Amino acid sequence: MPEVPTDEVGLIAALARLFGPSPPEVLLGIGDDCAALDLGGDRLLLWTVDTLVEGVHFDLSYTSLRQLGRKALAVNVSDIAAMGGEPAYALLSLGWPPGRELAAALAVGQGLAEAAREYHVAVVGGDTVASPPGITVTVAVLGRVPRAELLTRAGAKVGDHIYVTGNLGEAAAGLEILRRGWQAPADLAGPLVRAHLEPVPRVAAGRLLAQNRLATSAIDLSDGVATDLLHICRTSGVGARLEAEAIPWSSGVEWVARELGRSPLDLALKGGEDYHLLFTTPPEMEELLAEAFIRAHLPEPKKIGVVVSGREVILSSLGGEEVISGSGFDHFRLDLTPGKD
Amino acid sequence: MPEVPTDEVGLIAALARLFGPSPPEVLLGIGDDCAALDLGGDRLLLWTVDTLVEGVHFDLSYTSLRQLGRKALAVNVSDIAAMGGEPAYALLSLGWPPGRELAAALAVGQGLAEAAREYHVAVVGGDTVASPPGITVTVAVLGRVPRAELLTRAGAKVGDHIYVTGNLGEAAAGLEILRRGWQAPADLAGPLVRAHLEPVPRVAAGRLLAQNRLATSAIDLSDGVATDLLHICRTSGVGARLEAEAIPWSSGVEWVARELGRSPLDLALKGGEDYHLLFTTPPEMEELLAEAFIRAHLPEPKKIGVVVSGREVILSSLGGEEVISGSGFDHFRLDLTPGKD
Repeated sequence: MPEVPTDEVGLIAALARLFGPSPPEVLLGIGDDCAALDLGGDRLLLWTVDTLVEGVHFDLSYTSLRQLGRKALAVNVSDIAAMGGEPAYALLSLGWPPGRELAAALAVGQGLAEAAREYHVAVVGGDTVASPPGITVTVAVLGRVPRAELLTRAGAKVGDHIYVTGNLGEAAAGLEILRRGWQAPADLAGPLVRAHLEPVPRVAAGRLLAQNRLATSAIDLSDGVATDLLHICRTSGVGARLEAEAIPWSSGVEWVARELGRSPLDLALKGGEDYHLLFTTPPEMEELLAEAFIRAHLPEPKKIGVVVSGREVILSSLGGEEVISGSGFDHFRLDLTPGKD
Repeated sequence: MPEVPTDEVGLIAALARLFGPSPPEVLLGIGDDCAALDLGGDRLLLWTVDTLVEGVHFDLSYTSLRQLGRKALAVNVSDIAAMGGEPAYALLSLGWPPGRELAAALAVGQGLAEAAREYHVAVVGGDTVASPPGITVTVAVLGRVPRAELLTRAGAKVGDHIYVTGNLGEAAAGLEILRRGWQAPADLAGPLVRAHLEPVPRVAAGRLLAQNRLATSAIDLSDGVATDLLHICRTSGVGARLEAEAIPWSSGVEWVARELGRSPLDLALKGGEDYHLLFTTPPEMEELLAEAFIRAHLPEPKKIGVVVSGREVILSSLGGEEVISGSGFDHFRLDLTPGKD
């Protein structure tokens, strides 16, 4: 009997040991955003699956069924984007409470279909099962990336700069507004609430990094920088130092943090579901990186820190240095304590 | 707004309309056991996903966690088998109630790993999510089949004979024994209970049919002959006539049917989860078919009826003819009424 895990990271590691080594055409298995398969041809297959559970990942009192369908696809597409790929095909497995209207299930399908058209994804199959306690939406996505362009969590080198593709903490702030039913000023609340309800996978940014070999490692921000950067550190065998001053957040996040009696920095580093890309780039490529994003009419990535030796994620501020690694979002823990803040 | 569906078949059809036409490399989309993708190379990719929900598809009072893990893979492998393919890769998305022991999640993983080794499947990724109301196990499987050997639900021709690869109703009978806690004679109960808890996907039979072009259409029996044969009829544009005398069941099914006050024929035709293959073969290939199975040391398939013109599944017996199409297992309906019998 294998050692008993105590958290999600431990569980996934223990499962990976159980499943054993993969055949050689499996370039990446458990432990990255997607599995990467080399089945011949000039492009690798990227494959990922994600489940959204009612009451855990969404609440229909403020999420529309259409938004739910959109998000179920978007979070998977984000995993493909993090590896530099383009999404291509999707399968849906919809768990539906037997008493609930089937018209509502169609609304989930409409959201999924709408997002599929936007991301150029063909929905090629599906399955529906009865799920009495609540709706579950599982989507699996296949994407592709040219062999030489695959981005992974491994590859960050000491001295590399750490970037994110946009402001942090917005989705977490939006979720707080929705949960608490706050009447926030519309111009502040709108973008935050949208960030939670309709996250945008960063496919164009991922392709840009991949095609131009601008990143040594990448991940998408689903659990928050504190946790997701730690994944890069563990896989690459490095540490990271973040500069508190450099962490980007909007005035909306600041407003919500104030109302919560929490620091905006904390919300930015530990709030999940930003679905921005977090990546590392050698310092000598700083200019190339900026130019590439400007040329592609994409917002310039923001530098938030540097890769260092070690095994921890450290936050550096005027007040000194603090280890923040491993203190981020944990699915099991967070989901049990919705009022943890 | 599209028309509102009233059952699962209607829901899947409505979703298919929403998702619209697929690009040309998608040879089969929604409406077969797997999606079939032609991404170059000499083999097609087969892709399927299935979810098992606690309290709907399994009950841990009589299903071990190891058996649950095995079955979650087996039902997907069965879909690959129905299309003549070989399974190759799997992804796991495990929904776990936050309070439940993580050691138990590992036991599910062990069952999955064990079955993966047996079916030559590499588990290449996974995801865990919190699922407070109960365990859900979603598995997606990729398999492959040579382009010219793909078996589908389309292609059944009037005059073809209809076959199944083994006795029917065993899993349904086993489920009744488990649910009701019956003390059935061990030699009778053992195979039935195993048929429900540890179904065997018929990969070798599917490959044999595919390689030797022995079948004009095929499906795996997940919902029962009455329903699954109707899928073949609808997709092929034909009807079917089953011979009551020819439907194969074991003495164990007979025992359970007697205890239930139900006919064994009903259990055989409408009990789900047999995971045998149901297929059609031109009458002139009858001998070739038998020889191929004997040579491969596989049990000889049993002829249960014939493809006719029309749109219905008819049961023919000494008492006359009866339309049974569409009266089979319906996920939504059955799951709401566990005591329907």
